[in-house]
Amino acid sequence: MADLSTLVEGIRARDMPALARACRLIDERDPRAFELLKRVFSHEGHAYVIGVTGTPGSGKSTLVDGLIRLYREQGLRVAVLAIDPTSPYSGGAILGDRIRMQQHFTDEGVFIRSIATRGHLGGLSRSTGDVLHVLHAAEFDVVILETVGVGQDELEVTRLADTTLVVMAPGLGDDIQAIKAGILEVADVFAVNKADRAGADATVQDLQQMLSLRRIPKGVGKMQGHTAVSTFHRGPDEQTEEWVPPILKTTAHRQEGLTELVDAFAEHRSFLDDTDAGQVIRAQRRIEEFRAILYQALIDEVDARFADEVSEGVRDVVEGRGDPYSVAEALVRRALGSVSES
Amino acid sequence: MADLSTLVEGIRARDMPALARACRLIDERDPRAFELLKRVFSHEGHAYVIGVTGTPGSGKSTLVDGLIRLYREQGLRVAVLAIDPTSPYSGGAILGDRIRMQQHFTDEGVFIRSIATRGHLGGLSRSTGDVLHVLHAAEFDVVILETVGVGQDELEVTRLADTTLVVMAPGLGDDIQAIKAGILEVADVFAVNKADRAGADATVQDLQQMLSLRRIPKGVGKMQGHTAVSTFHRGPDEQTEEWVPPILKTTAHRQEGLTELVDAFAEHRSFLDDTDAGQVIRAQRRIEEFRAILYQALIDEVDARFADEVSEGVRDVVEGRGDPYSVAEALVRRALGSVSES
Repeated sequence: MADLSTLVEGIRARDMPALARACRLIDERDPRAFELLKRVFSHEGHAYVIGVTGTPGSGKSTLVDGLIRLYREQGLRVAVLAIDPTSPYSGGAILGDRIRMQQHFTDEGVFIRSIATRGHLGGLSRSTGDVLHVLHAAEFDVVILETVGVGQDELEVTRLADTTLVVMAPGLGDDIQAIKAGILEVADVFAVNKADRAGADATVQDLQQMLSLRRIPKGVGKMQGHTAVSTFHRGPDEQTEEWVPPILKTTAHRQEGLTELVDAFAEHRSFLDDTDAGQVIRAQRRIEEFRAILYQALIDEVDARFADEVSEGVRDVVEGRGDPYSVAEALVRRALGSVSES
Repeated sequence: MADLSTLVEGIRARDMPALARACRLIDERDPRAFELLKRVFSHEGHAYVIGVTGTPGSGKSTLVDGLIRLYREQGLRVAVLAIDPTSPYSGGAILGDRIRMQQHFTDEGVFIRSIATRGHLGGLSRSTGDVLHVLHAAEFDVVILETVGVGQDELEVTRLADTTLVVMAPGLGDDIQAIKAGILEVADVFAVNKADRAGADATVQDLQQMLSLRRIPKGVGKMQGHTAVSTFHRGPDEQTEEWVPPILKTTAHRQEGLTELVDAFAEHRSFLDDTDAGQVIRAQRRIEEFRAILYQALIDEVDARFADEVSEGVRDVVEGRGDPYSVAEALVRRALGSVSES
């Protein structure tokens, strides 16, 4: 445990090898990771977590680069977690991201790590959540969670973010079509990137229309016109205390529109901090995270304590001596005791 | 429970309302679903499960339609599960799929259902797995699991399939680039669809190259040339008893190449049935499924039995009286007993 104390100190000092080692313990689901996280939690900092997702080809990576540059100019410490759940088997770094981010490599105020491994049952978002607590303790000011795709796992990961940015670009064909209801729900801010290309305004309009459609069922008639018009940043709606995702045009490779984007993030952060609705969202996320931690701890403990029984169950199922549902039921009874405790 | 018996009878008779009701019980995680699944399992049939995934725009849906037609012509009963994990909040049907599949609507030998809901922690692949057992019991001959995207959840779902088809198309830009190692690993058969378009051969070659790269690290030198040449269907490699994914060209909207595709499926099925390597794959999948069922049952039971304690833990975490890791640890000890049973 002396070892863990040293590690916690290293994390607090933002010592890069210590941070990398902590991430590795979490990735590998090392039993010491749980103890580390308990300790790290008491030093919980206040990094602002931005989730960035969007369709491939939208220039997301260039945009994240631009954000790093902007925040660094403000003297803030930035960590980036690049998340690629489509590579469960490659187990490691995303080469492209590594190369792309080399320019920040010598900057001690920037920490970049790829997360590609995952355990069972939503393990990716769980281990990302754990790594976040390490970065909080290391007192980074901003953490960017950059996801590669827009699948369910990516949406799940963005739930760990304070603010989620969805990046799109004009002329990606069925881009908008491919955007499912899910992404509208998770987006706090939209960026239509590559706004110097033809069709940027059309993409903005498509988005506005989809957002207004989303809002109609809620029966707030007056919102309809409100959401359907402005192209630029709108803050939280004062009367409903509901966040209306602004749609911003950016041209990241020329660093255009990024200041406005960062302003929109700040406004969303105020919404979370200063309104009741924002506090409710924060509490819900804390509950979700707690449940995920609880379930994972439960599974890990059963796997450890009842290793023999689980192996036996596996054999029974594989060799056809029982159906998986009945065997699982018996095992659960064994683990929890067959009568409810009182 | 008399009710459940009637439901099981309805399922066995492929009564559509009964099938729909069973799917609903599973989707909604109704407590009766577990009992239903135990009963259904004893009637386990032998539907051949084909997973279909691939990039949007590759004509996947048209191809699935063509497969349904082909299997129906052979007099086989076909079920299709359309899986869309990017719509967790829309909770229901995929409108496009419903419309597209209307042509099969009056055919009693075809059952089509969309799965869009999901619970916590890999719930989508879990409930899809449960629905599969219902379809087995209903003695469908073929089940097609069609996924919308190529994210992690979709890859997860394809693990429930006997054979996974990955559909691509020429001219989708960074299509191939976007294909991650993960998809090469899950693909049992590749279809380059829209093969009447320019660039089909280039796409086939790109795929061949990626497959050969994948194989080189395994050090089977002689395989290299073998994988890099043929454009057409190759069966399992006799000498290594390893499945080499064939790459087939299809033009689904003209029903071209689909017979060859179905032949490739049959060959892969033989590989699974008749080789040791195939049996190992089947056993691994059964183990994975059993673990997923076990963990979900464990979580459900703890949530039910320790509802008050879990609520209290939630309050402690939200109100900052404890860190989530310590509170979870205490709860796990409470549920499992603090000393290891012997």
